[in-house]
Amino acid sequence: MTITITAFERSPDGGKGLARDTRVRWALEEVSQPYEVRLVSFRAMKEPAHLALHPFGRIPTYEEGELVLFETGAIAFHIAERHAGLLPADANARARAITWMFAALNTVEPPILELANARLLEGDKPWSAERLPLVKDRVRVPLNQLSVRLGDADWLDGAFSAGDLLMVSVLLRLRPSGILDEYPTLAAYVARGEARPAYKRAFDAQLAVNTAKK
Amino acid sequence: MTITITAFERSPDGGKGLARDTRVRWALEEVSQPYEVRLVSFRAMKEPAHLALHPFGRIPTYEEGELVLFETGAIAFHIAERHAGLLPADANARARAITWMFAALNTVEPPILELANARLLEGDKPWSAERLPLVKDRVRVPLNQLSVRLGDADWLDGAFSAGDLLMVSVLLRLRPSGILDEYPTLAAYVARGEARPAYKRAFDAQLAVNTAKK
Repeated sequence: MTITITAFERSPDGGKGLARDTRVRWALEEVSQPYEVRLVSFRAMKEPAHLALHPFGRIPTYEEGELVLFETGAIAFHIAERHAGLLPADANARARAITWMFAALNTVEPPILELANARLLEGDKPWSAERLPLVKDRVRVPLNQLSVRLGDADWLDGAFSAGDLLMVSVLLRLRPSGILDEYPTLAAYVARGEARPAYKRAFDAQLAVNTAKK
Repeated sequence: MTITITAFERSPDGGKGLARDTRVRWALEEVSQPYEVRLVSFRAMKEPAHLALHPFGRIPTYEEGELVLFETGAIAFHIAERHAGLLPADANARARAITWMFAALNTVEPPILELANARLLEGDKPWSAERLPLVKDRVRVPLNQLSVRLGDADWLDGAFSAGDLLMVSVLLRLRPSGILDEYPTLAAYVARGEARPAYKRAFDAQLAVNTAKK
C-alpha cells in the first residue's frame, strides 16, 4: 500500500530540516520504504479536509490504505514496529528504545519548544531579554543529564534506534541557539545522526521541496 | 515477576494525584497488575542510585526483573502492550490509540508544562501578570481542537485506551487553573476518566502515601 505523508508547502525554516516531516522521512528512509508527499499550505492546514486527518491542524500526517495517523512520535513508532531497522528484536532492549522515543518528546523537547516560543512569539516583549537566559537554563537541565547518560557511546542504548532518531531530531532544533555546541558529546551525537545516509536522503528531500521554484 | 515503581516520598502537590506516578498506577490498575512502590526523596532522586534508573532524575521508574524503564509514556505503553485492556486488538485501532498517547504528551502537555513553569518558576517575575494570559492562550489552542475532535464521544477513538489514560492525566493538570472548565466537553471527559474504578484506586494509593504520618 502506498504511504503518503504531508509536509509544509513552504517550511517556516526555509529548508533547514527542522519541520517535523523530516523526522518521518528519516524513519521511512532508515527502513527503505518509499513514500509520497502531499504538500499543504498554512491555510489548508486549518481547513476541514486536513483537520479530518490531523485534529491539531499540523503536519506531518501518515496515510496508508485506510489507516490515518498524526503525531510524529506515533508515526515513527508505527514505521519502526512494522519494518526492521529502528527497534531491536530483544524485548527489553525494544522497551528501552521506546523509552528514549518518549524521553525525546516529553522530557527533552518541551523546554526546547518553550525556548522556540520565547523567541518566535515573545521576542518583541519587554521581558524578552531578561527572560531568555532563564528559559535557556531550563533547556540545559535535561541536556546535562542526557550528555552524562550518553557518555562516550555512539547511541543511547546499543544500536541506533527510533529513540536516537527522535532524540537527534529534537536536539537539532537547538543548533541555531548555540546551546547544542555547549555539549560536545551531544553535538557529536547529533552529527553522527546527520551523517547517516538515510538522514541525508530525508534532509535532501525536504530541501528540494523548500527550494523548488514556485 | 514483581513490578516496582518509584514515587515521590512527598509529592509537591500534596496528594492531588498530579505527580506522574499516578499515571503508571492507573495503567497498572486498569490491567489488574499488582505492584510495589519505592518512595524516593527529592535528594535521593538526584543521587547516583536513582540516576542509574532514571537519567533525568525524576519519578516514576518501572522495574520488572532485569528491565528498567523510565518515562511515563513508555511505561504506560509497556504495560498496555503486555496486558489486555489498554490497547485495542485491531491493528489500525491500536496504532490510532498509540497516536493519542503521543498527542497527549507531545502536543497537549508541552503548553501545560509551560504554564506550570510560568506559575512556579516565574510567578515572582515582573512580567508574570502580563505574560500569563499569553501562556494560557497557548494552552487553549490544542484544547479547542481536542474538544472539537472529541465531540460528544466518550473517549478519543472507540473504547477507553492508554491514549485516553494519558490525555485525561495531562488535562487533569489544568484543573487548578480553571482552564479545563472553559471546555465542558473536556471537563466531562476528564470526569469520566476519574470515575473509572482503576483511576480511583490509583488516586487513593498515591493519596495514602502523601497523607501518611511521617
